[in-house]
Amino acid sequence: MPSQCHLNLHLNLHKIRQRQLEYFPCGPIEDASATKFIRNMAMKGVIASAFRTLASSGSSASSTTFTSHLHASAGSKKIVGVFYKANEYAELNPNFLGCEERALGIKDWLESQGHKYIVTDDKEGPDCELDKHIPDLHVLISTPFHPAYVTAERIKKAKNLQLLLTAGIGSDHIDLKAAAAAGLTVAEVTGSNVVSVAEDELMRILILVRNFVPGYTQIVNGEWKVAGIAHRAYDLEGKTVGTVGAGRIGKLLLQRLKPFNCHLLYHDRVKIDPELEQQIGAKFEEDLDAMLPKCDVIVINTPLTEKTRGLFDKERIAKCKKGVLIVNNARGAIMDTQAVVDASSSGHIAGYSGDVWNPQPAPKDHPWRYMPNHAMTPHISGTTIDAQLRYAAGVKDMLDRYFKGEDFPAQNYIVKDGKIASQYQ
Amino acid sequence: MPSQCHLNLHLNLHKIRQRQLEYFPCGPIEDASATKFIRNMAMKGVIASAFRTLASSGSSASSTTFTSHLHASAGSKKIVGVFYKANEYAELNPNFLGCEERALGIKDWLESQGHKYIVTDDKEGPDCELDKHIPDLHVLISTPFHPAYVTAERIKKAKNLQLLLTAGIGSDHIDLKAAAAAGLTVAEVTGSNVVSVAEDELMRILILVRNFVPGYTQIVNGEWKVAGIAHRAYDLEGKTVGTVGAGRIGKLLLQRLKPFNCHLLYHDRVKIDPELEQQIGAKFEEDLDAMLPKCDVIVINTPLTEKTRGLFDKERIAKCKKGVLIVNNARGAIMDTQAVVDASSSGHIAGYSGDVWNPQPAPKDHPWRYMPNHAMTPHISGTTIDAQLRYAAGVKDMLDRYFKGEDFPAQNYIVKDGKIASQYQ
Repeated sequence: MPSQCHLNLHLNLHKIRQRQLEYFPCGPIEDASATKFIRNMAMKGVIASAFRTLASSGSSASSTTFTSHLHASAGSKKIVGVFYKANEYAELNPNFLGCEERALGIKDWLESQGHKYIVTDDKEGPDCELDKHIPDLHVLISTPFHPAYVTAERIKKAKNLQLLLTAGIGSDHIDLKAAAAAGLTVAEVTGSNVVSVAEDELMRILILVRNFVPGYTQIVNGEWKVAGIAHRAYDLEGKTVGTVGAGRIGKLLLQRLKPFNCHLLYHDRVKIDPELEQQIGAKFEEDLDAMLPKCDVIVINTPLTEKTRGLFDKERIAKCKKGVLIVNNARGAIMDTQAVVDASSSGHIAGYSGDVWNPQPAPKDHPWRYMPNHAMTPHISGTTIDAQLRYAAGVKDMLDRYFKGEDFPAQNYIVKDGKIASQYQ
Repeated sequence: MPSQCHLNLHLNLHKIRQRQLEYFPCGPIEDASATKFIRNMAMKGVIASAFRTLASSGSSASSTTFTSHLHASAGSKKIVGVFYKANEYAELNPNFLGCEERALGIKDWLESQGHKYIVTDDKEGPDCELDKHIPDLHVLISTPFHPAYVTAERIKKAKNLQLLLTAGIGSDHIDLKAAAAAGLTVAEVTGSNVVSVAEDELMRILILVRNFVPGYTQIVNGEWKVAGIAHRAYDLEGKTVGTVGAGRIGKLLLQRLKPFNCHLLYHDRVKIDPELEQQIGAKFEEDLDAMLPKCDVIVINTPLTEKTRGLFDKERIAKCKKGVLIVNNARGAIMDTQAVVDASSSGHIAGYSGDVWNPQPAPKDHPWRYMPNHAMTPHISGTTIDAQLRYAAGVKDMLDRYFKGEDFPAQNYIVKDGKIASQYQ
């Protein structure tokens, strides 16, 4: 009954908007965020399912034309979610769905269908809460922000495990080979936070090029030394920016860089669509090592795979222009940790900003906290409130399909039928 | 001899590029910056003079078709420049032209023509260096970053004063009415740092919307609390951004915001060109007070005038949406200082970022240093190295024209023939 679904969609979005109007410090979500995300999903031909996702659990789902792939055996499922704890921040925003306390806002919905839903932030160490549930859970929901490391050992112990869902993008915290060998399905909410991450990358480029951090630090320390900032502050205009990887996030970044009148370069396995390439005005660089010396700013936009782990080691960083600025919101392990510290100390890297670390949470003595000219944060770029609303909706959608034995949107699969998605190979 | 001028221009730009290649942490300046600025000036029909500006002082200037306006009486002139001191930073970058130590790089050129050039950063107090030279200087060069306040009293004492040049944009540190009454000429290097400021504004919008500062602070304090940031971090996409003023900087900001898929609003005395308005997709708001409650983010882009001083007082801030984010790189005195502190403390303003203060340098006890959710810096947005190269070239151009009795580029005049430019009225 599409009209009923339509109505439910609108009712739910109306509720979200109402809550936003009351609490959202930054105004209501309009075209963007959940609404737009659902609209984009619809454009990809999954409109019926997307509507079902946001429709209330009581809505009558019509029969589907999707072929069934991952059959959830009948009966109650045990689902475990690992999220960062919000503590005193949990009550400050009703849309803060991604924290342990709200657990994507799907607890009532899951329990009303007879499923068991355990949530925790305790994911490490011999007696951690996660390990207690590994032997009998059916589904594990995790995030890149507070990653539950799903090792081969954990997979071996998880006798009932069928499905690993990443609330967000980036499933490198899962041993994908072991998951594939065990016949598990791994899926992300592809697209849920690509805009969030691309915006954050552009912010970091500007923070480094314009030397924001020492300026802020002066102010809170009661100082005023314009020269201490200005001697190494530049305009972004006219500089050369290269992205290593031009997938969903890389393309969105290049589009946002377009009006800044930079020289834009990108390296990837394949060229982007010629029409989009021309529209953005970015130049393809087949050879990474030939691109690096041209760049004033380098942005990392590749997934972490066996090929990209440690890609930026001492030798590759030496190939970059002296004084290069590096932004990395992709994964910390793409960089050699000590090589970044050494090059930042020598000045070869003039600034490094990102929100990804190896491991996460970063320990107190992680050297990136203390190296010169950094603008680091904890892993936050993909977990804005807007992104949380989208990936919470995406996880609910996939759980709903799982219970019904339906396929997920094709682009969400990371491991399916023993095969690992191409971007992770 | 245009061909000789052409050659000198190229030689000079070649020298700048060589220095950039050696020292510029962010790569050489290409199309942007000085080259592009001069090209734009050329497009505005001042090509011959622009060439002369960058040509070496020994070049033979041909006769000009410009009508003479401001006649410098023959002989040696006393020129005083007030700039911020760079101290240990002065030697770190050969293009750091805007500091007292380099004084726009025009000392040798001025002295070779028999003029006297005094530079200082000492501009306040009864025995300050500036006041010693007020009685007999002919030209005063000042900047908005370390403003020499040119009061009616100082103007009265400056018996020989003819010309006040602002290296940068924004001449509100000069009593324009008194300058007009005294028959002085006041001019800025219009356009020299508009891109610099617009880029900086976009950075600050993202820093506030995405809640960057507490994330950075956590890292350097050895912490890791994603929730402390994420509960009030948003995407810029879909939000409503309004600029108060859509002159040169406001338009550049709107153009750079275009790919972020926001709702863009602008308030100004006049509508922008319909073609540009459609291209940017920004909506005109005739009534400021009607625009404010619609905005998630407000950016101030008006000059400081008698009409805009204290424009954002308690009552006007109350008209803004609860949780509004405000970016102000225009002038500190457009805001009521205490009203901003109070609204930031109550949460009505959820974030405030800018680089302008009242007065400057901001005293140690300025309350904006210590209010919640700010992302303040000293006044730096218009004094990037790229901007310095452009406003140094622009000041040299105007001095050259002054010595020769030629008009300045029309858009540079702030006070001419006793009249104050429209944007300052």
